[in-house]
Amino acid sequence: MSFQTFEAMTRPEDGPPRLARLREHLKAQGLDGFLVPRADAHQGEYVAPSDERLAWLTGFTGSAGFAAVLGEEAGVFVDGRYTTQVKAQVDTAHFTPVPWPKTKLGPWLAERMEAGQTMGYDPWLHTGFQISEIEKAFEEKGIKLKPMVNAVDAVWEGRPGRPTGDLSLYPERFAGRSADEKRAEIAKILSDAGEAAALLTLPESIAWLLNIRGSDIPRTPVAHAFAVISADGAVDLFTDAPASDAVRDHLGQGVRFHPYGAFHTHIGTLKGKARIHTRTAPHILWGAVAEPVVGDDPCFGPQSKKTSAEIAATTEAHLRDGAAMAEFLAWLDAEAPKGALTEIAVAQKLEACRIATGELRDISFDTISGSGPNGAIVHYRVTRDTDRAVSPGELLLVDSGGQYLDGTTDVTRTMAIGTPTDEHREAFTQVLQGMIAVSLARWPKGLTGRDLDPLARAPLWRAGKDYDHGTGHGVGVYLSVHEGPHGITRRSKVVLEPGMIVSNEPGYYREGAFGIRIENLVTVVEAPPLEGADDREMLAFDTLTYVPIDRRLIDMSRLAPAELDWLNAYHARVKALISPRVSDTTRVWLDAATAPL
Amino acid sequence: MSFQTFEAMTRPEDGPPRLARLREHLKAQGLDGFLVPRADAHQGEYVAPSDERLAWLTGFTGSAGFAAVLGEEAGVFVDGRYTTQVKAQVDTAHFTPVPWPKTKLGPWLAERMEAGQTMGYDPWLHTGFQISEIEKAFEEKGIKLKPMVNAVDAVWEGRPGRPTGDLSLYPERFAGRSADEKRAEIAKILSDAGEAAALLTLPESIAWLLNIRGSDIPRTPVAHAFAVISADGAVDLFTDAPASDAVRDHLGQGVRFHPYGAFHTHIGTLKGKARIHTRTAPHILWGAVAEPVVGDDPCFGPQSKKTSAEIAATTEAHLRDGAAMAEFLAWLDAEAPKGALTEIAVAQKLEACRIATGELRDISFDTISGSGPNGAIVHYRVTRDTDRAVSPGELLLVDSGGQYLDGTTDVTRTMAIGTPTDEHREAFTQVLQGMIAVSLARWPKGLTGRDLDPLARAPLWRAGKDYDHGTGHGVGVYLSVHEGPHGITRRSKVVLEPGMIVSNEPGYYREGAFGIRIENLVTVVEAPPLEGADDREMLAFDTLTYVPIDRRLIDMSRLAPAELDWLNAYHARVKALISPRVSDTTRVWLDAATAPL
Repeated sequence: MSFQTFEAMTRPEDGPPRLARLREHLKAQGLDGFLVPRADAHQGEYVAPSDERLAWLTGFTGSAGFAAVLGEEAGVFVDGRYTTQVKAQVDTAHFTPVPWPKTKLGPWLAERMEAGQTMGYDPWLHTGFQISEIEKAFEEKGIKLKPMVNAVDAVWEGRPGRPTGDLSLYPERFAGRSADEKRAEIAKILSDAGEAAALLTLPESIAWLLNIRGSDIPRTPVAHAFAVISADGAVDLFTDAPASDAVRDHLGQGVRFHPYGAFHTHIGTLKGKARIHTRTAPHILWGAVAEPVVGDDPCFGPQSKKTSAEIAATTEAHLRDGAAMAEFLAWLDAEAPKGALTEIAVAQKLEACRIATGELRDISFDTISGSGPNGAIVHYRVTRDTDRAVSPGELLLVDSGGQYLDGTTDVTRTMAIGTPTDEHREAFTQVLQGMIAVSLARWPKGLTGRDLDPLARAPLWRAGKDYDHGTGHGVGVYLSVHEGPHGITRRSKVVLEPGMIVSNEPGYYREGAFGIRIENLVTVVEAPPLEGADDREMLAFDTLTYVPIDRRLIDMSRLAPAELDWLNAYHARVKALISPRVSDTTRVWLDAATAPL
Repeated sequence: MSFQTFEAMTRPEDGPPRLARLREHLKAQGLDGFLVPRADAHQGEYVAPSDERLAWLTGFTGSAGFAAVLGEEAGVFVDGRYTTQVKAQVDTAHFTPVPWPKTKLGPWLAERMEAGQTMGYDPWLHTGFQISEIEKAFEEKGIKLKPMVNAVDAVWEGRPGRPTGDLSLYPERFAGRSADEKRAEIAKILSDAGEAAALLTLPESIAWLLNIRGSDIPRTPVAHAFAVISADGAVDLFTDAPASDAVRDHLGQGVRFHPYGAFHTHIGTLKGKARIHTRTAPHILWGAVAEPVVGDDPCFGPQSKKTSAEIAATTEAHLRDGAAMAEFLAWLDAEAPKGALTEIAVAQKLEACRIATGELRDISFDTISGSGPNGAIVHYRVTRDTDRAVSPGELLLVDSGGQYLDGTTDVTRTMAIGTPTDEHREAFTQVLQGMIAVSLARWPKGLTGRDLDPLARAPLWRAGKDYDHGTGHGVGVYLSVHEGPHGITRRSKVVLEPGMIVSNEPGYYREGAFGIRIENLVTVVEAPPLEGADDREMLAFDTLTYVPIDRRLIDMSRLAPAELDWLNAYHARVKALISPRVSDTTRVWLDAATAPL
């Protein structure tokens, strides 16, 4: 059994004939182009095989992007993370990689199309926001945008069937609140806002709300579903995922089941204001509802503040995962110096360590195992084609996580293979200082992640360095490893509140040489009492992740006394918490790996 | 000669009879109330004696606040800085201190007034924004707001005459650009925005634009003036400050002189869009202009980015001021342990040291000299009534600055008198760490002061402490010591750019015990090259202020290696730059005060 595969899932040469077939079909339909996003109707990070239209058509398998197919040109829009990957995966004689969001879709299309021409799109796969951006660019030039049945599906032979994993109950002892309580809370949010209902299009929100889980997409235990929650707390649930009597009994009379396909017709019957989440709801919903109102998904706020039961559950998941990580790291230290390992072997061993816990339901995302220069590719996913030896003198960056019934983990460690260079140690220490600054942070209530982001970067900034990703993202409990609405980035506008789980993952990447990232998950808590403190309401972080940090990469002479104290206290706690959970061999390794510096 | 006086400038018992006279006058005019702000028509921090209406009426002398006089009640609205002061200065049997902005003026008045009643106000002394807030609260209740000639002036016997200090030229070798060049730049900003003109109501903007200075208000070398700059660069200047032929020749044909009082009539003749700065322009202007447009004062941007000549000039001013500070600190160290000094004696000696440079034009604000618990009052201004001994075992906080022709300084140092306690040293070291974090900051272009503010607070936050003021404000060059639009605060939305001068002044205040603040002025610069740095465009700070930081208050065991390095390098530079400028006795003191730790 294994979750992650390392085969190339697409071949560049498959793209051009498929593109030709799509163009023929468009021509027959009287269309001049079609949009092919990577998204499904739920705008999540992972999609089911039946929704991998972009990969099927172009060969590009990144987690974000879209193709704009015209008669003469087919642009594949990808962001900076995927600039290199897209060139390797698509046949560039037929597909043109386009740097996005630097180049915007609307103007790009408007430049290449003429007045009177028509661009088709599937209104389930684009948000209202995305479509209105294109419409703006088209308006001036007299180009039309036409919603239609998906044109890729019409030419995709052997397209996999839609997934139909069973719905299962999520134990209330982990959730901490019943679905009835949650429905009542959301109902109050809606009635306070004078809204009659909210459309829920994010499977994670629905799973959280109803204390259910599913298995329709990889890496995130949710079902393909839509829902409408009314201001009286009643829920209409639209899903084709089979629900046992136990699930139906649990959900009770307040939750009515409907087929997935009935959602669109149903919302046409809604009376009163219906809230739609602008950034994620499919474009088609805006026209389908009588009184649409722009607003956040009402589950966002309550869902982000985890209950003490959820924190207790995920704490146990993190200790279990920490023990698996320790087994893995002990093995790595023994094997890597021999010089026979590769990135894939590393990822496979790590997955095996997690599976050995007997509790792993899935990995929470494809493991990033990058040695040497591959570590500098921020969203690297190793395949047979890119697999690289793990060689002494280089760094190895491993970013991974597990889905357990009691929690979702996400941890990054960077290890020295053999002897690190001074450059490695300097950069690693600076990244560590940023990571410690966030771990030690205490702040007056009312700040957002934006206000903490600079603390993680300052040690790198001082050295003229930085990293081009956020410092942290929200994380669910046996849900998505990327969960909004909070985070620690320059764009984080959401106030941090107790119970929120967020990653703390500064990094440093030297292209063509090495990559460093150190990541723990932390929970926002009321700051504990402190001698000499003011009488101020402050918040702080509790650490969830307990995994040794490679001591060989730390330049002690750079550390502040408070930083060294944190590191030694952290390692002492790793030892105390993880040691009872590991094998004898690993315990010996752990003692050394957590010894005070 | 001395600039600062320490006499109480008002007496609580003067208020009630004046209030009675004002009420009589209002009654005769058929009015039910009148607003008395501390502001003049230019909304600056200091006002001329003829504009001290609030102090005359109520006794309250703080730098911000306003009174709302009704038939039965007279509210004196002050912010948190002045809660204690207002109670000591006004007769609370007749005046009610109101905490502002917690209590808003509009609703406070609306609660106390009835439909059909009328509130009078002087439309020159309130901004449009302030008046519209009150109007909103009045509208529902049918209360009227009536612009009128100032009612306080009508009853103020012996009111000082309006100031009429001479206009003087500001040397172009300090300004770095001619008035003609500046007018052309502002003209381009207006014509690019499609605006015909901008109304300038801030004397600092006008002084900067025309390379002139005045002496109409204390602490800031500007004249009472308004101006209109047109999109062709021509300026109409409205001032009663006498201008010599030399000044008129310098300004040339492009600047037309008018009496101060002609401004209102003149702007009624303007054709096309005229920009008005919402936050500072008097309310009366909005109705006076045919096509008003909301916008920032167009001088803000160019004025904030100092020329290299301005930086060179103010650097010299800061070294001169640093030498005066060193003389003062050497004297303090010799005298304070004897136990005979008071806060006033300290402020007087410091002023004398600055005057002894032979170059001091004014102090840049009233010196804050706070010993022991008085140091915890953030905007403390010592008077004969509050004067307190400077006693061994306590801290002394001194925040002061000078106005020199070549620059404006602002520096805070906190000194141990005798032996400090562990609590003093702990808090001082944490404040110093924040101040060093800003000094050492280097950051990618595009950030605002908001993004740097947390760096100054993090060391205090970790200890459960904070300070309730911004970390930094902009500073002019022989202009206002508080100059927008940038800063380092949670509200700073302006991107930091090379040439901006800003203060770096974290602090810590323990009410009833002690206050700590350490303040240097710094300049934003392109970050110097650095070995091992990424190829990123980054900015950094250059330090302007060179004054020893009290080594006795530093707990070395808390410092990071980089912090200690900064401190020793800073002190070495203080010694190198200031030593040649001080007396022999002070040089001996300076050697010890700047010795490496």
